[in-house]
Amino acid sequence: MHFTSETSSDGVIERTFILDGITGVLWSPASGTTGAPLLLSGHAGGMHKKAPGLLAGALHCVTTYGFTVAAVDAPGHGDRPRNQQDQRWAEAIHAALAADEPIAPIVVEYNRSLAERAVPEWQAALDALQALPEIGAETPIGFGGMTLGVVTGLLLAAADSRIAALSLGGVFVDDALIEAARKVTVPVEYRIPWDDENMDRDSGVALFDAIASKEKTLHAHPGRYNQVPEYERDSSARFFARHLGGVAETVSY
Amino acid sequence: MHFTSETSSDGVIERTFILDGITGVLWSPASGTTGAPLLLSGHAGGMHKKAPGLLAGALHCVTTYGFTVAAVDAPGHGDRPRNQQDQRWAEAIHAALAADEPIAPIVVEYNRSLAERAVPEWQAALDALQALPEIGAETPIGFGGMTLGVVTGLLLAAADSRIAALSLGGVFVDDALIEAARKVTVPVEYRIPWDDENMDRDSGVALFDAIASKEKTLHAHPGRYNQVPEYERDSSARFFARHLGGVAETVSY
Repeated sequence: MHFTSETSSDGVIERTFILDGITGVLWSPASGTTGAPLLLSGHAGGMHKKAPGLLAGALHCVTTYGFTVAAVDAPGHGDRPRNQQDQRWAEAIHAALAADEPIAPIVVEYNRSLAERAVPEWQAALDALQALPEIGAETPIGFGGMTLGVVTGLLLAAADSRIAALSLGGVFVDDALIEAARKVTVPVEYRIPWDDENMDRDSGVALFDAIASKEKTLHAHPGRYNQVPEYERDSSARFFARHLGGVAETVSY
Repeated sequence: MHFTSETSSDGVIERTFILDGITGVLWSPASGTTGAPLLLSGHAGGMHKKAPGLLAGALHCVTTYGFTVAAVDAPGHGDRPRNQQDQRWAEAIHAALAADEPIAPIVVEYNRSLAERAVPEWQAALDALQALPEIGAETPIGFGGMTLGVVTGLLLAAADSRIAALSLGGVFVDDALIEAARKVTVPVEYRIPWDDENMDRDSGVALFDAIASKEKTLHAHPGRYNQVPEYERDSSARFFARHLGGVAETVSY
């Protein structure tokens, strides 16, 4: 893992890194990170490691809770070149959107392929992050994501016991994702859009039901998958603080 | 409104009161209440103004957020005599439980009657509370409740514009409650049990859909209606703080 840049702003240190072609970013509190959890943040399909919503959530977690947050570009996303097969999937999605045809069948196939490649990449990134002296092997780890990040998070949590809690957003659900969810036993907070013409409620609820965790909670919000109310950002951070531990907090209303 | 007792413990002042035969209790921070919201807390059917869950939630709101919390006994509950019709309903519920028959049809009828009587009582209590110098007419007001308290809260919010936010738990839903929900436009946080043999998911979701509020959120938790996870207590308090304002807060994990 090579750090390629370091900036500091409003109490947050942002470091970009590269690891075997995987481009990533690490946000940490300028005041230090002793014992605070590490959150891995999986961006949505078509987005990148510094997508606006991901960035806002990361900065909130760092400044309010003292967490460290890491994000990497998914294969073919952000600063990473896209291969021909991924290019075909992306074009098929755009064509379906243009033709007003359902994109779900294409997205689930594309996401599945991306997530299967992303899991070992996240594991390698996690190895490298744990080797950093300011993080170490004992830091509790959570994963948060939406759409593609949900698929990645569920597969990663099913495969790697270092993931101790999952905060998830809306996602296109297929049988394979349901099967992955059945292997997940860590605490989960899962938020689904209640009025999304593409992501139907029933499949979201079916995924919630499949999650094998004893502690799981479903949050439904009005609107589409990308209209997550701002207060859910803090709910997610508090979910992680509850399960991973955290630092003293002062919030004013 | 006559105060009948006053005790103080762990930074909370508890005062019991009586108003035209309505027995109630008021919890407030010993450090004062300047500008902090007033929460009205509606107990479940068969319970009373100091039911364990209600009390735990009230103390959390007072000690962590500086809120004032008021609860009154529903008609025929707690310290209030039960009339003959209510007695028949209560006996019918016990008989149905003993015979392993569904209680929902009886409970919805009983709750409806109790809530219709409770609404003007809450309004009278609210008048009296607002006349207290430490509360006043400008204090923002929220209502929280479960089962019977949900019916009461929805009817009260539909009838009285002083109720600015509603935090609700599980409830037996009938068409009349759906109709009441359609008149509610204030922010709502509604939590439903996901595995309750008596309160089916579909009716809970139908009630959520009927609520006319632009800002509403649904939380589903594993287990029965009375197995609400402890973290939902703080979620509810934060929901009120978000919508009603509140005081600076310090929480450690």
